[in-house]
Amino acid sequence: MEIIISKEYFNKAITDVSKAISNKTAFPFFSGIKLVASTDRLTLIGRDSDIIIETIIPSTIKVIQVLNVYATGSVVISAKYLLEIAKKLPNDICIKVDEAQVATIQSEEIVIKVNGFDPSQYPSIPEIYETKHAEIQCSDLIEMVKQTTFAISKSNSKPVLTGVHMTFAENHLQCVATNSQRLALRELPIISNIHGSYIVPSTSLNHLAKLLSSDDRLLQIFLTGSYIVFQTKTITLYARLIEGIYPNVSSLFPKVWNTIITMNTNLLLKGIDRASIFSSEWKNNNVKLAIKKGEKLRISSTATEVGQIEETQNITTINGEKELTISFDGRYLIEALREIKEEEIKISFGGAMRPALIEPLGNSSYVHLISPVRTY
Amino acid sequence: MEIIISKEYFNKAITDVSKAISNKTAFPFFSGIKLVASTDRLTLIGRDSDIIIETIIPSTIKVIQVLNVYATGSVVISAKYLLEIAKKLPNDICIKVDEAQVATIQSEEIVIKVNGFDPSQYPSIPEIYETKHAEIQCSDLIEMVKQTTFAISKSNSKPVLTGVHMTFAENHLQCVATNSQRLALRELPIISNIHGSYIVPSTSLNHLAKLLSSDDRLLQIFLTGSYIVFQTKTITLYARLIEGIYPNVSSLFPKVWNTIITMNTNLLLKGIDRASIFSSEWKNNNVKLAIKKGEKLRISSTATEVGQIEETQNITTINGEKELTISFDGRYLIEALREIKEEEIKISFGGAMRPALIEPLGNSSYVHLISPVRTY
Repeated sequence: MEIIISKEYFNKAITDVSKAISNKTAFPFFSGIKLVASTDRLTLIGRDSDIIIETIIPSTIKVIQVLNVYATGSVVISAKYLLEIAKKLPNDICIKVDEAQVATIQSEEIVIKVNGFDPSQYPSIPEIYETKHAEIQCSDLIEMVKQTTFAISKSNSKPVLTGVHMTFAENHLQCVATNSQRLALRELPIISNIHGSYIVPSTSLNHLAKLLSSDDRLLQIFLTGSYIVFQTKTITLYARLIEGIYPNVSSLFPKVWNTIITMNTNLLLKGIDRASIFSSEWKNNNVKLAIKKGEKLRISSTATEVGQIEETQNITTINGEKELTISFDGRYLIEALREIKEEEIKISFGGAMRPALIEPLGNSSYVHLISPVRTY
Repeated sequence: MEIIISKEYFNKAITDVSKAISNKTAFPFFSGIKLVASTDRLTLIGRDSDIIIETIIPSTIKVIQVLNVYATGSVVISAKYLLEIAKKLPNDICIKVDEAQVATIQSEEIVIKVNGFDPSQYPSIPEIYETKHAEIQCSDLIEMVKQTTFAISKSNSKPVLTGVHMTFAENHLQCVATNSQRLALRELPIISNIHGSYIVPSTSLNHLAKLLSSDDRLLQIFLTGSYIVFQTKTITLYARLIEGIYPNVSSLFPKVWNTIITMNTNLLLKGIDRASIFSSEWKNNNVKLAIKKGEKLRISSTATEVGQIEETQNITTINGEKELTISFDGRYLIEALREIKEEEIKISFGGAMRPALIEPLGNSSYVHLISPVRTY
């Protein structure tokens, strides 16, 4: 293999694929990046046991020659060193690999030799069958990731809850994340002939959202064996599915609401954030909400021995019972409200001991269910 | 005590003085900020055992009323809560303290109550005697801090080496920091009638450099008992001196040099930074420099089993012996070169086993001495 490549694109590609590489891999191959030089492109692959990221640098980008391939071939080189090399070399980079897998990397007066791994030992990439596939706007996917992944369980005791449950139907996608105390659900219209439900690790989805650039418009989704595959023109991310049965969440939504209010999203978010000053003393970051005479919402928290905070905010509209006192985990409220971009929200309460439903006013494609906490 | 204060200035002052406060203080008072409301100003004080930061908010700043004092008095409030409160309140802040040291903090519809400490128990601030004092440009002080503090010892086995040794003479200041393997020395002309040497903790100097804003021009320096005091119009920082005898460093400078070269500072810095890719395998981050025939400097490093890097750079001028091979700790070279803003540097070598001297070409007010490392 022998190539000359523009530093800028090489550096970007190495940075992208190295996101898949964990520092504590037991399998030395997975600490490396595989470079494959074909006649018209350089393919780079980084992976660990749960994720594979592949990116392609074509010979020309916007009519500028960014890659010259003098000899095709492949090599696997330590990601740690490759990252530093790609960042610190000043200019176009020449890479030449000999039969002993020693890569000689040159730029101006600088000569680097790195011992590579034998690429034939590198595990193969799952094949993609294109019959079943879906298509989604990248911006929608990014929003969906932000609105769900925060709500997953951080504990590994129930592995299925560490993922986002993606349910594909004809031209429709539903994504759910929950840690049992709160649940985020986002619906999306997509172009799809996939039918089925898959649990996707939230870390892989977060990587995907970060990799998508403003240039990317459309994302293709495929399923292959144990992977779900997300593909743009330049990047392919394979996320290993989490095995197991996801809980049936539809039964969690109360059928009857006692009180439904609407309020300003951002003012409520700021109020909850302030009340959290004193809520950290509690295991559940208790923030107390109290509706008084159907006109005002009092937000308060107390840290014994230290202090207390309270404020009142206007309720825009109210339906149902006009008095209610309920406590939530302040962090959960903040995380849910932060991802709502609409100015007004609707909150539906089923009573002090039942979960409340938060949704943007006039848009039920994103809903958030949150259980109250006990205050004793 | 009862005051109304502009959120913006209160927030800035709380942030500044809280820099002195360590989270792991054993003395609960030191987790608090002392507020003292006098008729025309609010004084805020944060401290731990080694540093005291005091800042003043006057009634008016640039003809704008930022503080109203309705009742003088003082209180000590937890810095942790005060920081969050000052950041999260939306507008002008009203603070009222009752006889039980409960502070009621209000802003718009928000009411916060915090239990304060009794301010009469708060340790007093050392008095400043103004007869002996020095005056320095803030920008010079910031540069001096950057050029010396990185060179201190990170180990606590010799406490004096964790500080910067400041030697005051008539209108002259010398600052030295060393960890025994490398030494940074900066000379500064100042206005001073102080005579004597003091060891100042590098952490206090780093805090000071960060607190100085672009508005600050002149810094006054005083000595009082066990503190050195740095004062601008709005901020006073007291740094507790480190006790002990600082080593006599003048004997460390070789009298005779075998080879003196001049080179481009930034190119050398980048070359050493690249060579460091493979130097981390060594305990001392070994980077090898070799002068060949008096024309080129070869920079290289090798990580056994992994790889190697080498590059050659032009030497601008050379005096003395034309061949030399010497190894340094790459991190030490990088830290020294980074703080030199002049385009060209002079490096004086006394041989492969003796320390080298790095200084900006044509400016000997900043010199850096660095010992070679053994390569076996």
